[in-house]
Amino acid sequence: MDKSTLYQHISSSFNSELEGLRNDVLAMGGLVEEQLARACVALLKGDLDAATLTIKNDYKVNSAEVAIDEECARIIAMRQPAASDLRFITMVIKTITDLERMGDEAVKISQMALSLSEDYSDQKTLLLARVTPLSEAVTEMLGQSLNAFARMDVDAALQLPLAEQKANAEHDGVMQYMLEHMQGNPNKLKSALDVMWAARALERIADHAKNISEYVIYMVKGKDVRHTRPEQVRAELGYVR
Amino acid sequence: MDKSTLYQHISSSFNSELEGLRNDVLAMGGLVEEQLARACVALLKGDLDAATLTIKNDYKVNSAEVAIDEECARIIAMRQPAASDLRFITMVIKTITDLERMGDEAVKISQMALSLSEDYSDQKTLLLARVTPLSEAVTEMLGQSLNAFARMDVDAALQLPLAEQKANAEHDGVMQYMLEHMQGNPNKLKSALDVMWAARALERIADHAKNISEYVIYMVKGKDVRHTRPEQVRAELGYVR
Repeated sequence: MDKSTLYQHISSSFNSELEGLRNDVLAMGGLVEEQLARACVALLKGDLDAATLTIKNDYKVNSAEVAIDEECARIIAMRQPAASDLRFITMVIKTITDLERMGDEAVKISQMALSLSEDYSDQKTLLLARVTPLSEAVTEMLGQSLNAFARMDVDAALQLPLAEQKANAEHDGVMQYMLEHMQGNPNKLKSALDVMWAARALERIADHAKNISEYVIYMVKGKDVRHTRPEQVRAELGYVR
Repeated sequence: MDKSTLYQHISSSFNSELEGLRNDVLAMGGLVEEQLARACVALLKGDLDAATLTIKNDYKVNSAEVAIDEECARIIAMRQPAASDLRFITMVIKTITDLERMGDEAVKISQMALSLSEDYSDQKTLLLARVTPLSEAVTEMLGQSLNAFARMDVDAALQLPLAEQKANAEHDGVMQYMLEHMQGNPNKLKSALDVMWAARALERIADHAKNISEYVIYMVKGKDVRHTRPEQVRAELGYVR
C-alpha cells in the first residue's frame, strides 16, 4: 500500500484530517530536529544560551505530543477508520512517543552542556571533539527517519537499522575513549562523565529514530520488523543484500 | 468512569476480548517483573546464570508486545470501539511500549552484572550495596504501576510520581557516591561506571512505571497528566495535598 491508496477516501474531509495528522507529526519532528541541533550546538560549542533555550522549549514538544494524541483519539472515535487508516493512526501514536522521548534526550544533552561549562580546560575541547561524529550521525538519522515517514518510503526506512549500527559503534568508541581518558586523568572525571551521558543520550535518539523507521515499514508492508535483525528484515522484504 | 462501566457492552464477546487484553497486559507485566527481579539478583548477588537467563528471555517480552499490539489493531478494526473502549485500547498500546522498554533496561542491568563479574574486589561489594535501595524502590514502583493498571486505581496511580521523585533522589545519591569513589580509586573506574549504568537503567524503569500510572489517570479521569507536576495533578483532580 502506498501513500496514494492510503489517502483515497470517499470523505474528503477525512482525507484532509489524515493529511493534517501527517503534517502535525512532521511539524513536531521539525521541532525535535531544532531541539537536537540546538542541544548539539550547546554541547559542542559550549553555547549556554542554546542550552537554556533547549530546556525552556521542551514544553513545545510535550504539548505537540498531547495535541496529536488527542487528535488521533478524536479521529478514531469520529471516523471509525478501516484497517489501513487505523494502522496509520496507530503508527502516529507510536511515532510521537518516540519524538517526545528524543526531546527529553535533547534536554539531557543541554543539561550536560551546562554542567560542562564549569570546565575551562583544553582537555574538554578534546573530549567534545570525540563526540562530534556521533552527533552528526544521529542528527542525520533523525532526518532520515522523518523523510521516511513523510514519504512512507520503505527504502529510506531500511537505511536506519544500518545507520544505527554505525551510530552504536561510534557511541562505543566514545565510551572507550572517555574511560581511557578518565584512567589517565583521574582528577578530571566529571567532564568525561558528562560527555559520556551526552553520548548516551545521542545513542538513545538514534534508537528512537530507528523505531520510527520500523513503524514506516510496518505501515507500508504490514510487517512488524521490531526485534528483527536488519539483514533478516531486508531478506524477508525481498531486498537484495 | 470505573472498571464496571468500562466493561459494560451489549456484546459479551467484545467484553471478553477487552478483558483478555487486560489480562495479556498483566501477564506481560508479570514477565517484566520477573525479568527485573532476575536482573537485580544478577547485579546484586553476582549471579551470572540469572544474568544470562534475563538476556536470553528478553525475546518473550518482545513477543508479548508484538502480539498485544496486533490484538489491539484487530479489536479496533473488528469492533469499531466507542470513545471509552478506544481510550482503553490506546492506553494498552502505550503501556506495552513502556513495558517492553523496561525489559530492555533489565537486559542492560544484566549486561552490567556480567561486566562486573570480572571484578573480584571487596570494593565492588560496597558499590553494589549502595545501589540496593534504588533497586528496591524501582521494583516496588513497577508493582504499584501494574496494580494501578489492574484495578484502574487512580489513588494507587497517584503514588507513582511521588515514588519516582524518591527513586530519582536515590539515583542521584548513587551517582554522587560512584563519582566520589572513582575520584578516590582512579585505578578502579570500570566497576563504578558499570554500577552507574545499572543505576541509570533502574531510573529509566522508574520513569516507565510512572508513565503507566499516568495512562491509568488518563484512562479513568480523561485527563492527560503527562508533563504535569505531581502536586498540580493532585490539586487538579481534587485530592487534598
